[in-house]
Amino acid sequence: MKKKVVIVGGVAGGASAAARLRRLDEEAEIILIERGGYISYANCGLPYYIGDVITDRDNLFVQTPHGLRARYNIEVRTRHEVLKIDRQQKMVEVKELVSGRVYQETYDFLLLSPGATPIRPKIPGLEGDNVFTLRDVADTDRIKTYLRHEQPQRALVVGAGFIGLEIAENLVAAGLKVSLVEMASRVLPKNLDPEMAAPLHNHLRARGVNLYLQTALSAVEQRDGQDWALLGNGEEIPYDLVVIAVGTRPETHLAKEAGLELGTNGAIRVNASFQTSDPSIYAVGDAIEVESGITGDKTYLPLAGPANRQGRLAADAICGRPVKYEGVIGTAIVKVFDLTAGSVGFTEEFLKHSGQKYLTAITHPLSHAGYYPGATHLDIKLLFTPEGRILGAQVVGAHNVDKTLDVIATVMKTGGTVDDLAALELAYAPPFSSAKNPVNIAGYVAGNIIRGDLPVASWDQILDQENPDFLLLDVRSKSQFAAGALEGALHIPLAELRQRLHELPRDKEIIVYCTIGLTSYLATRILIQNGFKARNLSGGWQTLKPILDDRRATAAQKNR
Amino acid sequence: MKKKVVIVGGVAGGASAAARLRRLDEEAEIILIERGGYISYANCGLPYYIGDVITDRDNLFVQTPHGLRARYNIEVRTRHEVLKIDRQQKMVEVKELVSGRVYQETYDFLLLSPGATPIRPKIPGLEGDNVFTLRDVADTDRIKTYLRHEQPQRALVVGAGFIGLEIAENLVAAGLKVSLVEMASRVLPKNLDPEMAAPLHNHLRARGVNLYLQTALSAVEQRDGQDWALLGNGEEIPYDLVVIAVGTRPETHLAKEAGLELGTNGAIRVNASFQTSDPSIYAVGDAIEVESGITGDKTYLPLAGPANRQGRLAADAICGRPVKYEGVIGTAIVKVFDLTAGSVGFTEEFLKHSGQKYLTAITHPLSHAGYYPGATHLDIKLLFTPEGRILGAQVVGAHNVDKTLDVIATVMKTGGTVDDLAALELAYAPPFSSAKNPVNIAGYVAGNIIRGDLPVASWDQILDQENPDFLLLDVRSKSQFAAGALEGALHIPLAELRQRLHELPRDKEIIVYCTIGLTSYLATRILIQNGFKARNLSGGWQTLKPILDDRRATAAQKNR
Repeated sequence: MKKKVVIVGGVAGGASAAARLRRLDEEAEIILIERGGYISYANCGLPYYIGDVITDRDNLFVQTPHGLRARYNIEVRTRHEVLKIDRQQKMVEVKELVSGRVYQETYDFLLLSPGATPIRPKIPGLEGDNVFTLRDVADTDRIKTYLRHEQPQRALVVGAGFIGLEIAENLVAAGLKVSLVEMASRVLPKNLDPEMAAPLHNHLRARGVNLYLQTALSAVEQRDGQDWALLGNGEEIPYDLVVIAVGTRPETHLAKEAGLELGTNGAIRVNASFQTSDPSIYAVGDAIEVESGITGDKTYLPLAGPANRQGRLAADAICGRPVKYEGVIGTAIVKVFDLTAGSVGFTEEFLKHSGQKYLTAITHPLSHAGYYPGATHLDIKLLFTPEGRILGAQVVGAHNVDKTLDVIATVMKTGGTVDDLAALELAYAPPFSSAKNPVNIAGYVAGNIIRGDLPVASWDQILDQENPDFLLLDVRSKSQFAAGALEGALHIPLAELRQRLHELPRDKEIIVYCTIGLTSYLATRILIQNGFKARNLSGGWQTLKPILDDRRATAAQKNR
Repeated sequence: MKKKVVIVGGVAGGASAAARLRRLDEEAEIILIERGGYISYANCGLPYYIGDVITDRDNLFVQTPHGLRARYNIEVRTRHEVLKIDRQQKMVEVKELVSGRVYQETYDFLLLSPGATPIRPKIPGLEGDNVFTLRDVADTDRIKTYLRHEQPQRALVVGAGFIGLEIAENLVAAGLKVSLVEMASRVLPKNLDPEMAAPLHNHLRARGVNLYLQTALSAVEQRDGQDWALLGNGEEIPYDLVVIAVGTRPETHLAKEAGLELGTNGAIRVNASFQTSDPSIYAVGDAIEVESGITGDKTYLPLAGPANRQGRLAADAICGRPVKYEGVIGTAIVKVFDLTAGSVGFTEEFLKHSGQKYLTAITHPLSHAGYYPGATHLDIKLLFTPEGRILGAQVVGAHNVDKTLDVIATVMKTGGTVDDLAALELAYAPPFSSAKNPVNIAGYVAGNIIRGDLPVASWDQILDQENPDFLLLDVRSKSQFAAGALEGALHIPLAELRQRLHELPRDKEIIVYCTIGLTSYLATRILIQNGFKARNLSGGWQTLKPILDDRRATAAQKNR
C-alpha cells in the first residue's frame, strides 16, 4: 500500500527524513511543508555569511525545492504553515501564506521537525529595526541588509553561547566593534568550566571584543539619537545594533495543541524510534526531548548532527525498519577567532550539582610533535567516575581540538574508560600528532589519578586560600620561575629536588606545580616515595596563568 | 628489595620504559645502555630535518643523557654496546665503544629495546659515500653533510613506503630532483589498495617526483663520472645520491644468541606483558612480535606509537603491576606534500589473499561543510565483514585525514562495526565538519551495502572489461558528463531518470555512476525499486578519474 507522509519543517531533520524516505520507498507520497521561504539550508553557516567568510549566498542552500522535487520526487511547499493537527482524521490544516488560502492535507504518517525558536527576553525598550536574533535565512538577510545600508559601527551581542560567539566573531570580521554580554561568569557556561573558559576570555579581548560577564542586559534606552544598553552591574554600552543569542526553546505549539505528550523543557516526547504519544506521528530535531547517551536520563540537547541522524532514523522507522536511537552525548564545537573550543558530556559544574562522584584530569599536550613547526598547546579537561568511565571532556586550543574531541566522544559513545583512551592506537607522524597522542596522555594521567599514583589538586583549591595549610612548590627552571610564579611558592628545580628534600616540611601537605603538570608529576612521585604528603597541581602554570590574566583584565575593566 | 634494571636501547620503547620505571620506583637502579651517541631522539622527525622543515638540530632530541640523569636519576651510557647476554648469571657483557673496554653488568630485569635495522638489498655496485639509509641521527647527519658539501642535484629514493615518501618529499624541499623507485605497483603497497594510491601518484608527479613503479633497482654503475641506476624494466636513471628505504628488520642478534624464542619475521616473541621466553628478560618496540588487535594473530608491525606504549607497560610489568597488552591494529599516516594518506588494519589485497570474507565501501565526503571555505574531498575506503565488523580503513585527502582515520581506528580498537561509525556523535561546526561527519557517511554507506539497500560494483569490475555484460549509466549533469566520462556510458541525468526508464534494458545489469556515488545511489534505488538489476559504482568518477590519470601518465612515461 502506497503510504502518504507529511513532513512539517524542511531543514536538518525534516530534509534528511524526506530524502531517506524516498530512497527507501520510491512509491510513497511525500509532502514537505515549510513555513519559511527556504528548505535544507546551512543553518550553521549563517553567522559566517554575515562575516563575509561565506561570500556567496547561494552556497547557503544545500537543497532547493526544485532540486528536491526533480531528484527526489518530493512535493515541497515553502511558505506554507501547518496550523493544526487533526489526529482523529489524520489530517493537517495548512495555510498557504502568500495567498492566505487554508486547506486540509491527510496523512498516513506525520513527521514533525519544526525546530526551535530563539528566546527573546523581555527587556524594557528592546525593540526596533536594529534588534535581531539569528535563526534562519530571513534573519540573516535582515542583519546583512542592515549592515550594508546603515553601516553600524558598534554591535552588542547578548549571550555567549555557541551562536553568540560565532556572531561576535563575524561582526568583528564585518568591521564592527563588538561588546559581548553574558549573564554567567564565563562564555559557553553550559559547556566549559571556568578554567577552560579563561583562555577564551583572554583571546576574545585580544581580538578586540569587550567582554561583560556575570551581568545581564537589564534595559535599553535612546539618548541623543544613540542606543544605550544598561547592564545589571550599572555599566552602559552604546550600540548601533544588537543581536540576541540567549538560547532557543523547542517550537512545540502544534504538538501541544494536538495533545501530544511533552517532556523536558516542553520538548516533544518520543520513544527510541521517534514515535510521539500518537503512533502515527513522529518527531525529530530541535523540538524533541532526547535521552542522554551517558546516563539514559531524559534531556533537551538540540544539535545539528543528531537532528540529521534522527531524520534518517525516523524515516527508517516509518518504513517499518527496526530503530533504536542511542541518545545524545552532546558533542559540540565552536571556532573563536584563532582558538577552537569544544565539549562533550557533562561539565564539572553540572556533575557537582548532580551529586555524581567524579574525578578530573587537566592536561596540556602539544597538538603535534613539538619539534615539527606549528605545534601549539591543547587544554584538555577530562571528567570521569572513580572507576574510570568518561563523563565529559572539554578541549580548547589552536589546532586539533576537533580531532581530540572526536576521539574522546567516540570512546564515550561506547561507554569507554580513561584506560581505553590510553590504549588507543592513533595516527602518528610528526605533522599530525606525537607518539603519545594528546588523547593517550589524557588517558594515562587520568589512570594515574584513579590508581592513586598521582594525587592532584585543582586550581580552585590553591587560588583564593586565605590561610593555606599547604606549601606550594614550584619545580620549574630558574628562568621559568622568574618569569612568573605563584605568590609564596618555594622554588626547587626538579633536577635539584632529590638533593634538597631536607628543605621540605614533613608535617604539611606539599602542592607541586610546573608548566603543564609533567615535571611536577615526577616531583610528586619522588616526594610521595620519600614519605612526604604531596599532590600535583592539575594542569600547572598553563592552567593558572590564563585564569590570573583573565582576573587582571576584569579588574582593570572595573577600574576604568 | 631494590631492583636493578638494565635497558638495552635508548629510543622510543627504552626511554619510555626508563622514565615510567623511575616514576613507579624511586629506589630502583636503572641503567640505560645505548649503542649510538643519542637517546630518546625524534626518530620520525629525521626526514624533516633533511628537508630543513625542522631547522634546529637540537629540537630532534626529546631527552638528553644529562636530562635523564638529572631529572630521572637514570644511569645513561651512550656509545656502549651490549655484546652478549648471560642468562644463567643474569649478566650482560658491555663494550664501551670509545675506549674498547669490555665489562659485565648484572641485572634483576633486562629490557631489550634494540629496534630495527634498515634492510640493505644486495645490488651490484651499490656502495660509496653517496649511498644512504635513514634510521638514526648519525645517518641523518651524514645525509645532511653530503647535501651541504657535495650539493647533489639528483636523488634516487628506493622504496615508496612511509619513510621513502617522507625522504622524497624532503629531498624535493632541499632542492633536489627526485626519482622514486618502488617494486610494487603502487606507493605504500602494504597500506593502500591501488585506487587509493592513484591520487598520491598523480600528486607526486605534479610535485615533480619521477615515479618508477613495478620495477626494482637491479644494479648501479658509474659512467663518465655519473652514477646511473639500472632498473629491472630497462630504464636508466642518473643520480648523485641514493637513499635506500625498502624496510627494516628487527634487530635480534642479541636475543637470538641468548636463545630467546623468536617469532614472526624473526622478531622477539613476548607474552602479553612483554616477557620473553626468559621471565627476567622483557622486550618492546620494533624488535618484537605483536598480536594483531583485529584477529589476534601473531604479526610484525613496528610503529612508534605502540613502541612508546609498550615501554610504559613493560615498566608496569617489571614493577609487578598486572599488564595485558591489547595488540596492534596498525594505525599509520604520512604527509605527502599537500596530501595526507593513512591506514589502519588490513588492505583489500591482504584480505583477498587471507580468504577472509569482506565487503568494501568507498566514499568521498568533504573534509568540512562545503559552504565554508577550504573544504576538500576525502577518499575513504572502508573494509568490513559481511556482519559489519571493521577490518581496515584507508583515507587520503588534503584535510582532516588524521581525524577521520583516528575516529575509525578508535572504533576498530573496540571491535566496533560500521553501524557504530554511523551512530557516532562527532563535533560539528562548519569550519570543522558537516552535520553528517565523513565517518558517519562512510558508516551509513557501508550499512546500506550490508543490508542490501545498495548493491555496489568496484572500479576494477568495470575498467578493463573486454566484453562487458553490463550497461554503464552516467546520471551526472550534462556539463559533468561532457567534461569527461566513461567510454560507452549512457547518459541520463538523475532528474530525468524516472521519466526515461523505458530507455533502459531489463535483461542486462546496469552499473550506475555519478561524481562521488551519492546521486547514483539514489538512481540505483529508483532502478531497483522499478524492477531493474542495478549496482552503484563505489566512489564514482572521483575514484575512477585518478586511476585513469595515473594510467595515462604511466603510458606517457613509457612512450618517452
